[in-house]
Amino acid sequence: MESKRVGKYIVFSKRGEPKQVLETHDVEIKPVSPKKVMVEIMYAPINPSDLLQIKGEYPNFKKRAQLTTTSAKSVEGHVAGHEGVGRIVEIGSEANAKDKLGEKIEVGDWILPRSMGTVGTWATHIELSPSDVIVIKNKKGLTPAKVGSVVVNGATAYLMLDSIVKLNPGDYIIQNGANSGVGQLVIQLAKLWGFRTINIIREHKNGNNETEVYLKKLGADIIIKEHELESAETKKIIKNLPGPLRLAFDCVSGPAAASLARILPNRCVFVNYGMMSGVNSIAVDVPLLIFKDIKVCGFWLTHWYRENSLEDWLKVWNHLFDLLREDRIVAQLAEPFNMFDLESKSSFQSRLLDAIYSPKKAALVFTSKL
Amino acid sequence: MESKRVGKYIVFSKRGEPKQVLETHDVEIKPVSPKKVMVEIMYAPINPSDLLQIKGEYPNFKKRAQLTTTSAKSVEGHVAGHEGVGRIVEIGSEANAKDKLGEKIEVGDWILPRSMGTVGTWATHIELSPSDVIVIKNKKGLTPAKVGSVVVNGATAYLMLDSIVKLNPGDYIIQNGANSGVGQLVIQLAKLWGFRTINIIREHKNGNNETEVYLKKLGADIIIKEHELESAETKKIIKNLPGPLRLAFDCVSGPAAASLARILPNRCVFVNYGMMSGVNSIAVDVPLLIFKDIKVCGFWLTHWYRENSLEDWLKVWNHLFDLLREDRIVAQLAEPFNMFDLESKSSFQSRLLDAIYSPKKAALVFTSKL
Repeated sequence: MESKRVGKYIVFSKRGEPKQVLETHDVEIKPVSPKKVMVEIMYAPINPSDLLQIKGEYPNFKKRAQLTTTSAKSVEGHVAGHEGVGRIVEIGSEANAKDKLGEKIEVGDWILPRSMGTVGTWATHIELSPSDVIVIKNKKGLTPAKVGSVVVNGATAYLMLDSIVKLNPGDYIIQNGANSGVGQLVIQLAKLWGFRTINIIREHKNGNNETEVYLKKLGADIIIKEHELESAETKKIIKNLPGPLRLAFDCVSGPAAASLARILPNRCVFVNYGMMSGVNSIAVDVPLLIFKDIKVCGFWLTHWYRENSLEDWLKVWNHLFDLLREDRIVAQLAEPFNMFDLESKSSFQSRLLDAIYSPKKAALVFTSKL
Repeated sequence: MESKRVGKYIVFSKRGEPKQVLETHDVEIKPVSPKKVMVEIMYAPINPSDLLQIKGEYPNFKKRAQLTTTSAKSVEGHVAGHEGVGRIVEIGSEANAKDKLGEKIEVGDWILPRSMGTVGTWATHIELSPSDVIVIKNKKGLTPAKVGSVVVNGATAYLMLDSIVKLNPGDYIIQNGANSGVGQLVIQLAKLWGFRTINIIREHKNGNNETEVYLKKLGADIIIKEHELESAETKKIIKNLPGPLRLAFDCVSGPAAASLARILPNRCVFVNYGMMSGVNSIAVDVPLLIFKDIKVCGFWLTHWYRENSLEDWLKVWNHLFDLLREDRIVAQLAEPFNMFDLESKSSFQSRLLDAIYSPKKAALVFTSKL
């Protein structure tokens, strides 16, 4: 008698604080449906947008899943997680074994789920249509951690630098949350493309400068502590930059965002792409809008994916994959939380919450077979 | 013996509330300097930007004037007022009697001061270089009140409709302060150009609908009371518009601006051009920026004038003059305060303050010789 395959699913049936609403369920993984492929998720980063979605502060496109647990309990809810890289473990007998781009799908291939938001990646197994996967045929130089930060954070950094204003070499960008996944990639891509970065970071409680050293290593030109943002010293730095400061990226929102806006020079474009402070509004001083001609806008990757073709997505992804392969950029630092090799449901749940509430960027790793 | 010409100047030496800082001075008007022309201001509207400047919430470009009053007191300060239309009353013996565009300058000609902000218009007389005036040779169909609302409010309405997004016939614009000078012109120009307007007005204390009737007469398509802005009814109106709502104009700032932003559909551009509420910041909800892709910017006419040629200014002005001549639009409603025909300095001062604190739009009229 064959042993049953049991998968783990991380599900929320109602919105709220992750520790209150996230449930983990054991589900028997049946053999793949004839027209589908079975994907084992290898690596899924925990991104701020995942948490916003769970909390209900993010538009919801995901279909609710119907799961039957191994204890025969029926569960309905959303499988969490926007980003992840998986591996093909089974191909349905009648499946057209080609991905959306016509690439042949084989067992062992690494894939990215194509649709953003309709599939939750925080699960060991997901069954997909062949047309909903993108095969990464050339794995050379890649790791799941590298691939796993391209579709959300990598693309966000890339497109914010590339699609909002036309930057010229020597131009400056300023960003808060510089140590975030996106922030790290902004620094590296800016360096590669000849732009310069001013990076706002929080002061560590113990005063150490580990983050500062790391971001400098990535190519950060200037680092400013958050509490020094509106100081005379910072204003002097901004005033005397050798190139124009054209773009500001804000992933913090709230008072930190208002401070950032306040130090910008004329004509700078202020782009919000997150609410890490948990505050969901920014008090914009009107004189900045009128007299300094600051423009305030948002960047949402989902809009970009909706409005551009798969070929355009691939251009960005492949460019990032190549840069990662050649070690011209490094993937965001993320602490991997091994979600395999656990004995009880409660230990899975507690490790999940450790990962979610980790002060460092974290990622869920669902398999040892990398 | 010739009688002396005495002029009135409205001056502020320090910034603050108009009633506290505005001073009016009697000054002997000497014969014009050989290379200058003497202009008698006929009509100067009181615009919100004038008051902001006096209060110190507006960048200051004006040169401080040195005046010697008839009582031999020396006064140094800024002559208030950004906009006005004047009449040439004297031409210097050595003046090149041509304006900036080469038009001949003659006594009796109506002129607009060319430089925005360096000349204060709240005075009976100003001496200018011929190159600092624009002669309006064809006065046919014009009045000082018509000419006096083109350079600031007319041009603001015109350019906000014309230069921020490319609007198509059938598109909607929403604006608060719809009864302001700019608001009235936005309604009329939008109507002429095939756009449609949603107009937010305050409820009159006595519940009368005078404003509503007047704005409808100007061509307003939809009128909404400020306190009903976030109602289900308004949301339904916005949802069911037969054309896209593309632009929002805010001259109020503060909570009213935040409310306006909140009801906008995806992709709408929110433009602030004033702070009539006295609050100088707007709390922008981040989900509007990210998920609805609302862009927030300011419009400042001074930028536009700086960045465009005199020929471009004239295109806008002449277009507006023609529309006013042909009665295709009407000038903003403004109550004229006659500043001539007053006996004592104190009555001039008190009439000035009546004009400034009038609940209606007001204009200063310095001469009966129209």
